[in-house]
Amino acid sequence: MRVGVLTGGGDCPGLNAVIRAIVRRGVRDHGFEFVGYRDGWKGPLDDLTMPLGIEQCRGILPRGGTILGSSRTNPLKVDGGVDRIRENLVRDGVDALVVIGGEDTLGVATHLADLGVAVVGVPKTIDNDLSGTDFTFGFDTAVNIATEAIDRLHTTAESHHRVLVVEVMGRHAGWIALHAGMAGGASAVLIPEQPFDIEAICAHVETRFQTQYAPIIVVSEGAVPVEGGAMTVHPGEVDAFGHVRLGGIGDRLAVEIERRTGKEARTVVLGHIQRGGTPTAFDRWLATRFGLQAVDAVAEGDFGTMMALQGTKIVRLPLIEGTGALKLVSPEEYAEAQVFFG
Amino acid sequence: MRVGVLTGGGDCPGLNAVIRAIVRRGVRDHGFEFVGYRDGWKGPLDDLTMPLGIEQCRGILPRGGTILGSSRTNPLKVDGGVDRIRENLVRDGVDALVVIGGEDTLGVATHLADLGVAVVGVPKTIDNDLSGTDFTFGFDTAVNIATEAIDRLHTTAESHHRVLVVEVMGRHAGWIALHAGMAGGASAVLIPEQPFDIEAICAHVETRFQTQYAPIIVVSEGAVPVEGGAMTVHPGEVDAFGHVRLGGIGDRLAVEIERRTGKEARTVVLGHIQRGGTPTAFDRWLATRFGLQAVDAVAEGDFGTMMALQGTKIVRLPLIEGTGALKLVSPEEYAEAQVFFG
Amino acid sequence: MRVGVLTGGGDCPGLNAVIRAIVRRGVRDHGFEFVGYRDGWKGPLDDLTMPLGIEQCRGILPRGGTILGSSRTNPLKVDGGVDRIRENLVRDGVDALVVIGGEDTLGVATHLADLGVAVVGVPKTIDNDLSGTDFTFGFDTAVNIATEAIDRLHTTAESHHRVLVVEVMGRHAGWIALHAGMAGGASAVLIPEQPFDIEAICAHVETRFQTQYAPIIVVSEGAVPVEGGAMTVHPGEVDAFGHVRLGGIGDRLAVEIERRTGKEARTVVLGHIQRGGTPTAFDRWLATRFGLQAVDAVAEGDFGTMMALQGTKIVRLPLIEGTGALKLVSPEEYAEAQVFFG
Amino acid sequence: MRVGVLTGGGDCPGLNAVIRAIVRRGVRDHGFEFVGYRDGWKGPLDDLTMPLGIEQCRGILPRGGTILGSSRTNPLKVDGGVDRIRENLVRDGVDALVVIGGEDTLGVATHLADLGVAVVGVPKTIDNDLSGTDFTFGFDTAVNIATEAIDRLHTTAESHHRVLVVEVMGRHAGWIALHAGMAGGASAVLIPEQPFDIEAICAHVETRFQTQYAPIIVVSEGAVPVEGGAMTVHPGEVDAFGHVRLGGIGDRLAVEIERRTGKEARTVVLGHIQRGGTPTAFDRWLATRFGLQAVDAVAEGDFGTMMALQGTKIVRLPLIEGTGALKLVSPEEYAEAQVFFG
Repeated sequence: MRVGVLTGGGDCPGLNAVIRAIVRRGVRDHGFEFVGYRDGWKGPLDDLTMPLGIEQCRGILPRGGTILGSSRTNPLKVDGGVDRIRENLVRDGVDALVVIGGEDTLGVATHLADLGVAVVGVPKTIDNDLSGTDFTFGFDTAVNIATEAIDRLHTTAESHHRVLVVEVMGRHAGWIALHAGMAGGASAVLIPEQPFDIEAICAHVETRFQTQYAPIIVVSEGAVPVEGGAMTVHPGEVDAFGHVRLGGIGDRLAVEIERRTGKEARTVVLGHIQRGGTPTAFDRWLATRFGLQAVDAVAEGDFGTMMALQGTKIVRLPLIEGTGALKLVSPEEYAEAQVFFG
Repeated sequence: MRVGVLTGGGDCPGLNAVIRAIVRRGVRDHGFEFVGYRDGWKGPLDDLTMPLGIEQCRGILPRGGTILGSSRTNPLKVDGGVDRIRENLVRDGVDALVVIGGEDTLGVATHLADLGVAVVGVPKTIDNDLSGTDFTFGFDTAVNIATEAIDRLHTTAESHHRVLVVEVMGRHAGWIALHAGMAGGASAVLIPEQPFDIEAICAHVETRFQTQYAPIIVVSEGAVPVEGGAMTVHPGEVDAFGHVRLGGIGDRLAVEIERRTGKEARTVVLGHIQRGGTPTAFDRWLATRFGLQAVDAVAEGDFGTMMALQGTKIVRLPLIEGTGALKLVSPEEYAEAQVFFG
Repeated sequence: MRVGVLTGGGDCPGLNAVIRAIVRRGVRDHGFEFVGYRDGWKGPLDDLTMPLGIEQCRGILPRGGTILGSSRTNPLKVDGGVDRIRENLVRDGVDALVVIGGEDTLGVATHLADLGVAVVGVPKTIDNDLSGTDFTFGFDTAVNIATEAIDRLHTTAESHHRVLVVEVMGRHAGWIALHAGMAGGASAVLIPEQPFDIEAICAHVETRFQTQYAPIIVVSEGAVPVEGGAMTVHPGEVDAFGHVRLGGIGDRLAVEIERRTGKEARTVVLGHIQRGGTPTAFDRWLATRFGLQAVDAVAEGDFGTMMALQGTKIVRLPLIEGTGALKLVSPEEYAEAQVFFG
Repeated sequence: MRVGVLTGGGDCPGLNAVIRAIVRRGVRDHGFEFVGYRDGWKGPLDDLTMPLGIEQCRGILPRGGTILGSSRTNPLKVDGGVDRIRENLVRDGVDALVVIGGEDTLGVATHLADLGVAVVGVPKTIDNDLSGTDFTFGFDTAVNIATEAIDRLHTTAESHHRVLVVEVMGRHAGWIALHAGMAGGASAVLIPEQPFDIEAICAHVETRFQTQYAPIIVVSEGAVPVEGGAMTVHPGEVDAFGHVRLGGIGDRLAVEIERRTGKEARTVVLGHIQRGGTPTAFDRWLATRFGLQAVDAVAEGDFGTMMALQGTKIVRLPLIEGTGALKLVSPEEYAEAQVFFG
């Protein structure tokens, strides 16, 4: 059997661990051959392949990124894109395809599965906002990087009596902010699921300073103020010191807090360092097990499925679940972080 | 309500996070007062107390160890020990006790609960070998430390054509070896649950060297050879270089491999660095949530329970489960690591 | 003898290590008593003191920030400020003052020394731009944090075929960029000392992509384009995707590269995480030795001096050197980094 | 010009950084070709070569180990060894040889230089015990790893009231123990240069416990007791718990302290994790600059030299200096660490 593998979407620590596990188990226990498709869906679309065997996978377990490359190319938006993919799979003698990616990448996989292509999916989202799985790989790494940053900022906040706002990833779901905020001992955590009240935050800031402990506020990039919760700072504005401020919520929040409380506030936007580099042990373990299970699904002909973690077991779900409703932070889960607020 | 808190047994990253969460939520949301008992069961036995409030818990979240101190004192083995504890609890006006500890420490808690003392337990084992919970805090930290060590040893093994044996914790269960071995890309993982065959290991070593990649073998401290699997190296023996070798399995294994294959082998025994220092984000998150849930159990009068993680939920189990059957690595789970063997 | 200690200016890993060494040696070997002044020069100005003895210094060696607090208060800009300080020193019975700080903080110390106050200085600049000393503490920590970030970004750059621009600290001197760029394997390093040519950078970007390796560009916050080197992107502008871009050079550079080359470019601004948190071993060692030497200078009555590292020796220089000409990256040193450019 | 490169002796973080810098600068600025010799002196002895160009050096900067492999093969101890090397160099068309290694490896280089072979040396010792250079690469990495381990052990020592003995590398010189001990806040540091008095150490242990702070003792593997300083524990003995104890000084010290003070003591032997894995920023910077300077020396025909760091400058010394007197910790330097003792 000849199996194609591709990785699509944004970077996520653990991609190489998935690829390595697929190849090791596929070659060793199922006698498979592999074709590496380069740069996400661009690979099968333009027939960009690379050799993929045990040799190519040596030493990649601890490495970030993906040896296959990635892209955001969406063949559904390319005229005749799906047909070209099917033709290329046939031309390359590929019997089955393992697709590692997020909502968009798996959406294409689902479409191909509906057309009868033998596809198995491995979900990938650093944001951990996928229903059906307890965790996705890459998330633990992102949370640890954010937590270490918060650890570092505590002493600066305290020694210099400043408010520190840390903006982390999470456009739709606040998982990274929630976990890193709890783990880092942030005094407030703001997430997309729960619009924030700027007045309550400023009151919190004032209270913290009265007790001599400077506040650290962790905010998801997708957090928003409550309806009508008048933020007076708008993207692109010039602050009191004559600096232009970026449109990001972290920067706006810091300026707003300065204006309202008179306390110095600084923002740190963690950005891409959250999604690159070596994965944590948890992410390597999870990614490896997703890979093993995915290639077993191929061997068993269990197509149209994707892998998920439930408790400590890897299970297979219908592929469509990878593209369905987001897993959001519930009010109960958010309430846990609030214990440390104020 | 007045609540006592104690920590017993060996060190485990996350203990302070549990204490902090108990106190923050207890003071803020339940109006509790707290009494800190020092050095495990020695505290209530000898009435060694310390103040425990929000002030004492400032800044302890990222710190290893326990501000309460710990010991292995077992009051069940002290004449009249249990009675002294009950008297001291009364004297200190303590209405309920939160006990954070492993099998032995929770065993005493179970005994006291049977006698009608209002006790809630938080399980603690770095070895992750407790039934009923998916993970225990401290384990993720230990696995990450072991994985980082393996990462470091890879290049030495390869550049110097040596066998490297890494001995990790795990007297009865191989969880740390299994996870760190998979995450670190060890070529072989030896655990207590599956006695090892020294001949198969030496064959593995020879094969690895033929492909130019030096082997890294991760071994739990509790791993043993198969019945009759003749290890020729015994504790305390002098090796070929005139060095006395320790009784640990890691050292014995390295010498045995040297004798049988003629390849240089070195051992690294990670020891206490696996259980000290700052916890990972996962362990801080899990420990914090155990603490929140434990103090809620006290508030609800749900005594005789202990906390557990199932999926992403914190649940309460009967305290007796903390002292029951060990959670061992199953043959299926071990088989996953074997994919990378050979 | 009664010795006052203060820390001024921005955060810098190692401040606590200096304080601890001063106190340990002062108490143990010279029989000194200490007065802690809070929040930089604000302390002696407003007579804000705190107890400072061996007890206060327990456990602070690995901690970032400063237990004394800091501020940018400049008494030379306060009417009668210097007189108030001298009165408060007398009132507190302080015989000598150890001042730990950067150019501004040591400038005040120099002024006081000229007026006859018994002052010893310890230089502190994360930017490493102080003449007379090989290195300053905090710098090694900042460089390591920046290097780890670059390590993480490599895989993202390669897997996603993007340009990554990393903005590090360094307003006047490019030391952090130079060291982190060399250590992290950046393809280009831009520093304040050498205005950059945007066309050369874009040519570099094109070349790198032809060889399939995405470029990583490290830029000091104080880097500027060559005279007339037309940057078409200005602070506060809206980019091609409708995002407002910050005034920082990192963001402007990324947008400019995108415009000129059509390649996606992303910026990471490391900001405050470079100056908080636990110091590296080198910085703890250097800070400790500065502290020991500073209190010995007090004991010997060698006032008006500041500490410096020359080779592996700690020497004393006239305090004025801490406020004199900056130590800049020389063309020869910069040329070393250029070997990896292109 | 055709230049051979080899790495000999034990592992040391930064070897790959040296190789990469040599090749990058040699190819780019001097138009050199390179021949990689495998496994130290075994390479030129048995004519084991590998291609060495910019391609082979991609991505190796942050990696531990050496892509060239290493060994302890000493051609001076092989009949006709030196002649075989000279013949192979001629056969391979090698005009000059860059040798990266420690005392033994550079000893062979010196011998070859005396015979007229065009050799340049780069010193390599994790122990930092080479005269003529302020620091050697690899040392900073080892010190940071040891310091992080000590950081982790502090909380265990305190929470469990135990003595912790940390054995670090350093057979003849105590630099790693000195730096890591100072940086980690050890309460005592024992080095080969200053035989220790077991009674003073036990008195120190008792004193520490009276103040409630458990002691951490850092000991070089080469530390010895004072003449007649009766250690009652000998290699290979059985301790009070029936465990055979290794011959290492760390283990012997722990048992001795237990016997004399009745306090529980534990040993951690860091071993090979000190010399593997990714180098710190400092070591990458130093190794890179050694490499640049070494290949410049070749280009300038400045043979028989080795590189050294003096202050922040890389200088060239006669090769013989790499094999001369060891650089030992002076009494004055040791005294600095003693300030924190007791």
